Amino acid sequence: MAHRIINFSAGPATLPLSVLQTIQEDMLDYHGEGMSLIEMSHRSKTFDALVVETEALVRELMGFSEDYQTLFLQGGATGQFAAVALNLIREGKTAEYIDTGAWSNKAIKEAEKLGKSYRVIASSKESNHNHIPGNFKVGNDAAYLHITSNNTIFGTQWQEFPDTGDIPLVADMSSDFYCKRFDPNKFALIYAGAQKNAGPSGVVIVVIRKDLLERSPVNIPTILNYKIYAEKNSLYNTPNTFGIYVVNLVMHWIKDMGGIDAVEKHNRQKAQLLYDELDRTDFWRPHARKDCRSLMNVTWRLPNEELEKKFVAEALEQELSGLKGHRSVGGIRASIYNAMSKEGVQRLVDFMQEFERKNG
Amino acid sequence: MAHRIINFSAGPATLPLSVLQTIQEDMLDYHGEGMSLIEMSHRSKTFDALVVETEALVRELMGFSEDYQTLFLQGGATGQFAAVALNLIREGKTAEYIDTGAWSNKAIKEAEKLGKSYRVIASSKESNHNHIPGNFKVGNDAAYLHITSNNTIFGTQWQEFPDTGDIPLVADMSSDFYCKRFDPNKFALIYAGAQKNAGPSGVVIVVIRKDLLERSPVNIPTILNYKIYAEKNSLYNTPNTFGIYVVNLVMHWIKDMGGIDAVEKHNRQKAQLLYDELDRTDFWRPHARKDCRSLMNVTWRLPNEELEKKFVAEALEQELSGLKGHRSVGGIRASIYNAMSKEGVQRLVDFMQEFERKNG
Repeated sequence: MAHRIINFSAGPATLPLSVLQTIQEDMLDYHGEGMSLIEMSHRSKTFDALVVETEALVRELMGFSEDYQTLFLQGGATGQFAAVALNLIREGKTAEYIDTGAWSNKAIKEAEKLGKSYRVIASSKESNHNHIPGNFKVGNDAAYLHITSNNTIFGTQWQEFPDTGDIPLVADMSSDFYCKRFDPNKFALIYAGAQKNAGPSGVVIVVIRKDLLERSPVNIPTILNYKIYAEKNSLYNTPNTFGIYVVNLVMHWIKDMGGIDAVEKHNRQKAQLLYDELDRTDFWRPHARKDCRSLMNVTWRLPNEELEKKFVAEALEQELSGLKGHRSVGGIRASIYNAMSKEGVQRLVDFMQEFERKNG
Repeated sequence: MAHRIINFSAGPATLPLSVLQTIQEDMLDYHGEGMSLIEMSHRSKTFDALVVETEALVRELMGFSEDYQTLFLQGGATGQFAAVALNLIREGKTAEYIDTGAWSNKAIKEAEKLGKSYRVIASSKESNHNHIPGNFKVGNDAAYLHITSNNTIFGTQWQEFPDTGDIPLVADMSSDFYCKRFDPNKFALIYAGAQKNAGPSGVVIVVIRKDLLERSPVNIPTILNYKIYAEKNSLYNTPNTFGIYVVNLVMHWIKDMGGIDAVEKHNRQKAQLLYDELDRTDFWRPHARKDCRSLMNVTWRLPNEELEKKFVAEALEQELSGLKGHRSVGGIRASIYNAMSKEGVQRLVDFMQEFERKNG
């Protein structure tokens, strides 16, 4: 039995053990083909079939209609910050962004850097991004509205998504794609670095409504051109074959779990365990406003930094790892993505109660 | 014992069995850390140390001086076609390219698409790229000279690299990096998709002379900006962690083989076996001109297409896979990268002799 600790890392993050075991079993000889998946031509029938299946699985599990196509690209959300602006902002149009923290900011900065017309229509900066802004109005002429559905650093998450009518809604869902049920057909484009809920790092999932592909200009870098990659079903050049393969395994794992609804139920139970503990005593000081709490990243402070350091160190001794908060918030962050077990969260809660008894 | 066939795929390609076995052993618990490498934060001490070591290994094995830095990026050579043009062509300068086939062409087309000043100073197009052009003159004002060191499709390879004096020499070495000894310090920038000689797909190795980093403009996509990634030692955003890890394992494998000289000796022996067979009888019609033959990709035709199809099919029955030539050349292509064993090539040669006896 392999030695496995409880990994609360914000990403790359814990993966289902069964997925890792399958990777291990397949490593020298993928499905009897006499070679590893990572040694296989991306032009082979086997790999092509894997891409076709995974493209469909990503859509079907979430309930995207036939109007959408999945792309498997490289460069993570950072690449998409540029790709969204380069592909979707047409001359004379202005992109709109809602700033809910570091990642939104990077998306905004990228549009600015590339000389694109944009405006920030709402921000939670004044309160150190402890909530999702509720008061904003989308312009009739906007190229799109861009949101970050979950902020890994601050532990906030959109509870309901805005209705933008005819204006394309674009979301960076890197840290909460596949964590709960929502209507994906309200979105024009969703992108998500796989390394939290969907696989390893190095592959970014993009689901785009096909009519948007017509916006892609010719004179942008090929590697960032949605239309070119859509036409080739993500195989314009060699993709991250290992990454796509693992995304496939994770999609099957979600399906085997019972689909999105079962995953959401599991996630809500885990989050409840942890937030109940945070609300039990003033010893914990949760960062995110109650009505904006994330199911995926839970953030809180302790009475002082010394105690916070002690908490992280003693947790690690109990094999609870990756709990140090991001420097923008400080304190503690527990990332409890889909693959985190309820038992893992319970062990953290038990540790917290013990820690509070000793230090409260 | 795992079932393993002989894999002549052009890339992704065969990897050393020992590397695959290490990946397999590490999969559930990387070095006793209680998690897989692919579940580990790219900000962890362990992963950071892995990047630092791999960055140095890539340079040291090839003999790059301290003036160079290795970057591990995403997007393959396709991303680099854009990155080279965007980072290195300054206002008033013209990039120069030598066209030795499909890959050079894509690099050229990308500079054109991005509105950059460029010229093609030599091409082997007239002879269906069966050789490397020898007659060209690099302009004194060139932004750089770009070459493709090995053409996977046509089976040609630069035998000696041009001396460009003060003009930066840039090479796409995706298909022959680490296959033989050369002086890397003649180059300003070398890039190589890892999926042939250095690892899995999804990570592209860039070795850049540090003074060139000053050329990177601010207003290009961050994901393609060399300077930003150099400053963060490839960790500006989440890299392909699995890819970098496997590159590390392959670099160690090269070191354990005895370094570049031992690898070159091994490669020359393998290529000799195959070219000797191609030269033995007129039944085989080698594509590449003798003085430009590649150590990595060996291309040839048979008397007719029917025999070529038969060759590929019967080879596969003998567990010799991936031998179908690219449509631009037709016929047969055997890719014999570093990890291909001499025994594998010998089995191919034996099969060829048998095939010629029966069909010649």
